[in-house]
Amino acid sequence: MDKPYRPKITRASRPLTFDVEAVNERGEALPTAIAGEHPLTLYVDKREVVTLMTLGQAPEALAIGYLRNQRLVASVEDIAAVQVDWETDAVAVTTRKAIKGLKERMKKRTVTTGCGQGTVFGDLMEEIDSIELRDDVRLSEETLYALLDAVRRRETVYKNAGAVHGCALADGADIVYFIEDVGRHNAVDAIAGQMWLDGIDGSDKIFYTTGRLTSEMVIKAAQMRIPFLVSRSGLTQMGFEIANKVGLTMFGRAVNQRYLLFTGKHRFVKRVMPTMMA
Amino acid sequence: MDKPYRPKITRASRPLTFDVEAVNERGEALPTAIAGEHPLTLYVDKREVVTLMTLGQAPEALAIGYLRNQRLVASVEDIAAVQVDWETDAVAVTTRKAIKGLKERMKKRTVTTGCGQGTVFGDLMEEIDSIELRDDVRLSEETLYALLDAVRRRETVYKNAGAVHGCALADGADIVYFIEDVGRHNAVDAIAGQMWLDGIDGSDKIFYTTGRLTSEMVIKAAQMRIPFLVSRSGLTQMGFEIANKVGLTMFGRAVNQRYLLFTGKHRFVKRVMPTMMA
Repeated sequence: MDKPYRPKITRASRPLTFDVEAVNERGEALPTAIAGEHPLTLYVDKREVVTLMTLGQAPEALAIGYLRNQRLVASVEDIAAVQVDWETDAVAVTTRKAIKGLKERMKKRTVTTGCGQGTVFGDLMEEIDSIELRDDVRLSEETLYALLDAVRRRETVYKNAGAVHGCALADGADIVYFIEDVGRHNAVDAIAGQMWLDGIDGSDKIFYTTGRLTSEMVIKAAQMRIPFLVSRSGLTQMGFEIANKVGLTMFGRAVNQRYLLFTGKHRFVKRVMPTMMA
Repeated sequence: MDKPYRPKITRASRPLTFDVEAVNERGEALPTAIAGEHPLTLYVDKREVVTLMTLGQAPEALAIGYLRNQRLVASVEDIAAVQVDWETDAVAVTTRKAIKGLKERMKKRTVTTGCGQGTVFGDLMEEIDSIELRDDVRLSEETLYALLDAVRRRETVYKNAGAVHGCALADGADIVYFIEDVGRHNAVDAIAGQMWLDGIDGSDKIFYTTGRLTSEMVIKAAQMRIPFLVSRSGLTQMGFEIANKVGLTMFGRAVNQRYLLFTGKHRFVKRVMPTMMA
């Protein structure tokens, strides 16, 4: 296999936690770990696009994934370089050929919230209609449990300091990437960016998130063509409706050996239990 | 006291939860409550400003609070009417006199993420420098515990369906408002809007949130001149730094009779414990 194309990138991750002093209910002053948070302003060919508030674990992948999920860049081959500079809290993306109509697309952009990012919501919903996820892939209950166990055993910023969300891309029960960030959507975007950098195809993978399954989380998983979406948390009505529409196999409240399977049940293979004696 | 000015508003809240069927690990199909989520596009004098993804509990207050916290409207007296129409998923705000330079301010706007909303981050940080919170108000440990107990006993969408964040404005241990939404920032904005509608001053109040204390949460509390900020969750480094800078009294991990007091300790009155016999 050819090595995938890689833009020239820095590797400028930030320290992830900091100790501050807090006083607890017993009046004790305790050193307490808190998660980092940094503004990172994204420039594309010197044009300011967005300021992301980030933990700073994978800033280059975050910038690339943001441009990917916002549909501002069509392919990783269009990116020449990604340079993070924490002196100026900036990430400069240089394209190989200028993005057509970037100025107009930025102007048209509507801000979407609910932990959202600047996107044209209607455009995303239209794209959703055209997405087809692979139907020849399966996830067994054993694999789901093994993945949940792998996530549980992982050392994380969340365990140490809280205040972040984690996302993982998994190949069966193997965690390919695990990225945490202040916002759920930054963590998803960073994984999307890393997938581009490494030439990883999502069509047979599992996406795990500690965060809630709102409309935007489901849209992003579908955009990456990932057929399995697993969350420790709950979901919203629109998250449910979109997952149902694209036929995504979606689990909520998945922790230890418990889960709720909401949509896309045809890709899930339940463990056959031995017959119980009455 | 004069009755505060009130714009003409609809009262168009949405059903908050919906039942869908999910299959659990025992293979049982269960009706499961999930939280509502709706796009709501905000128009100011017919100009499209933002699409908010919302639970829809208090859409009029959300629209007003969004405009307040984004500093697009300077006072509730500038707003003539707020009309929500769920047929078109739109909220139309009519001003009494046109907002000066709205078009330019929209153009200048940089999107901030990490569960952010479209704001000019630099401008917000500048504003923070000029904020002075009241220093003649105190919060006792008894009142804090009573408030945490009142929050715990409350019936919520979260308890029923998860996937939302709740925010409360409290006057001592009395909850004045409790609003839940899909995004933390929507819930804060809706409270800011309701405060304007009812002419409530924040300078002696307590702001409670189930969500994390990131930079934007702390900035919004400070913008509303609220001196006490209490969260069930953790905080980030920038949340800590900004709270420290403005001298906000900030508690994290506050649940039952436990808390961590991070900043603004001078406003907190700890219960004097009877001397224990060894």
